[in-house]
Amino acid sequence: MRELNQRIVLTRLRSDGAATRPQLAKDTGLSKPTVGQALLELEQSRLVRAVGRTSNGLGRSAILYESNPAAGHVLGLDIGRARIRVAVADLAGTVVARVDEPNRCTTARALMKTVYQLAKKTVNEASLDLDDIVAKVVGSPGVPDRHGRILHYAPNLPDWGRKGLLDELEATLGTGLVVENDANLSAVGEHARGAAKNASSFVCVLVGTGIGMGIVINGRLYRGAHGAAGEVGYLPYGWPLYDVKARERPSRDKKALPSPRGLMEAVAAADSVVKMAEGDGVRGAETAEDVFRLARQGDAGARRTVAEEAARLAFLVASVSAVLDPELVVLSGGIGKSADLLAAPMEQALRTITPLVPKVVPGELGEDAVLTGAISIALTSAVDIVFDRRNDATAE
Amino acid sequence: MRELNQRIVLTRLRSDGAATRPQLAKDTGLSKPTVGQALLELEQSRLVRAVGRTSNGLGRSAILYESNPAAGHVLGLDIGRARIRVAVADLAGTVVARVDEPNRCTTARALMKTVYQLAKKTVNEASLDLDDIVAKVVGSPGVPDRHGRILHYAPNLPDWGRKGLLDELEATLGTGLVVENDANLSAVGEHARGAAKNASSFVCVLVGTGIGMGIVINGRLYRGAHGAAGEVGYLPYGWPLYDVKARERPSRDKKALPSPRGLMEAVAAADSVVKMAEGDGVRGAETAEDVFRLARQGDAGARRTVAEEAARLAFLVASVSAVLDPELVVLSGGIGKSADLLAAPMEQALRTITPLVPKVVPGELGEDAVLTGAISIALTSAVDIVFDRRNDATAE
Repeated sequence: MRELNQRIVLTRLRSDGAATRPQLAKDTGLSKPTVGQALLELEQSRLVRAVGRTSNGLGRSAILYESNPAAGHVLGLDIGRARIRVAVADLAGTVVARVDEPNRCTTARALMKTVYQLAKKTVNEASLDLDDIVAKVVGSPGVPDRHGRILHYAPNLPDWGRKGLLDELEATLGTGLVVENDANLSAVGEHARGAAKNASSFVCVLVGTGIGMGIVINGRLYRGAHGAAGEVGYLPYGWPLYDVKARERPSRDKKALPSPRGLMEAVAAADSVVKMAEGDGVRGAETAEDVFRLARQGDAGARRTVAEEAARLAFLVASVSAVLDPELVVLSGGIGKSADLLAAPMEQALRTITPLVPKVVPGELGEDAVLTGAISIALTSAVDIVFDRRNDATAE
Repeated sequence: MRELNQRIVLTRLRSDGAATRPQLAKDTGLSKPTVGQALLELEQSRLVRAVGRTSNGLGRSAILYESNPAAGHVLGLDIGRARIRVAVADLAGTVVARVDEPNRCTTARALMKTVYQLAKKTVNEASLDLDDIVAKVVGSPGVPDRHGRILHYAPNLPDWGRKGLLDELEATLGTGLVVENDANLSAVGEHARGAAKNASSFVCVLVGTGIGMGIVINGRLYRGAHGAAGEVGYLPYGWPLYDVKARERPSRDKKALPSPRGLMEAVAAADSVVKMAEGDGVRGAETAEDVFRLARQGDAGARRTVAEEAARLAFLVASVSAVLDPELVVLSGGIGKSADLLAAPMEQALRTITPLVPKVVPGELGEDAVLTGAISIALTSAVDIVFDRRNDATAE
């Protein structure tokens, strides 16, 4: 009963902010002495802290309590082909330490080591150790197979589909680890704090080194029957290959699938942008980022490349729209963040192929979307974990 | 309170079948006199009827009651380009009258008249009148816009997208009418009584005169933000048109959209099958049904056509799979019902374009899927409507 009362008081403080004892009694329906007792115990276990005093016209004041953001910390990781990002946040979701480094690893072993070092560096920056972290969520390309303990469909990370990878990650970062598809996390991130705050059914398309999509339906992440929902890198772009001059019937290429990447990903991810730019006579573009920068500066070749990339992504959006009819399409990731350049030509291409043209908007979190989603998911379980631990410790 | 008790008893009889008064008391937690009173009132309003007596070894017996299936009737309509199907069912879902006729109408006015005549004919066969029908559900191609009172994206029915069409339908068939997309109803039908009985997240692809898809997610129909989810006739099949000999960059056709039909529907609906068969030298095939019949009989040309149709539908399934990762893909409709011929070549084509190959099964309801779904939805509201009417009548 005492535990339940503490939980009621804590939930109220977390959902509606700092409050005094009388305010808490009013809001929860508990008596003032019960609230007082719960606050005392919550303060002892450091889950709640006093933050000041109210004052009113009569000169009387009361102590103001808040849920203690420092009662626990969570770790979010975004393991991408191009960069690795790590953040530590407190229970209020405030990021207290942050690391962002290029990913130069060419083997799974090296990547695992780098992930460990960067995670350790980040928690140390927050004056913590990995063991102090309450919940850890890792975003990665691919589809985590929780039974098989492996990651499917992650061709862009070195040997990342190998057996036992999920166990290796847990051995590296410690127990209580959740591995989630990066595009799913970007959707969660944009839903929690970004462009999709007011949407209940939408998709977040992540375009960068690879291509993925997170789907939220009625406010909840939709993962599909095998966790592969939103693996739109496998959309059958350009299949079958028509030889329009020869004959009406398409000539089918038996080797259509450029294994292990999908047909869509193979023509619209970052490396394709660089290759297209070469074909368009663009000079000095080593990355997709360079191509978009040059396009912004008015380079005619780079502009042609961006228009072509937009048309290719229009195929993706047209497919998603015909299947899901989403409220909103959020563009995210290293390429998606250039939605300002892509949106208009995408819409133009869309209008030539479908009457179902959805609203396409840029993500608001930029390249932080995956990390924000990871922290958001970690926080949903963190408070309960901290509360249970403190109460177990008290009971002992 | 008496109304509530009646409802509890009726719900128990509908969900678990006929029962005696003591059994009902045990199952509902109500006292035997309360159950007796509720049964009396339910019998008076014809919602419940006695069906016989139990007998046991001791020679004693009790009256067995059941929910009266004849207490009300529902109407289901499937308005397709090729055929119009109408059925009347009782509250147990048993079809008591059924009409199925070809649709030869070339104007919306003629179609509206035919729909009325067939509906009237069917209810009369059940010795009823349209006014006796408790709930009416119409399945039609297109996306009903309940605010605008029109149907979007129904290019295959004559002038079916005209203003006020939903009001015309209601004026024709009477109030209490629900218009639902036909593919959505086929999904509901296969879920309720067909191939998807055990699935919670699946799609039902309807291929016939047009192409559509119903989506069920976590047991519920998913309609999308504007009701257009599953409008897979608009998938960007074959776009962009590659001229593989000329250059790597696709040549985009500004008139890609064969308005008002979608790119996918334009190459894989029934008329395309007939056209392909002509190109394959098939003789005597006037309908897609003829082509499949000839393929079954071993006609080489017809077999080539079926293989090509299967490959085109593989594009559809690959797209749906990359977006939704469904547990199950049910094939339905005039062409979908030939899943026995289509499934193997579809799977073969799928394996060349995607690692995400879902389970594809034929629908179990054949061309009755839409009608079964319509009746299933009508029944969900019918019992409540009948109950409320009888109680209102008693109260007067």
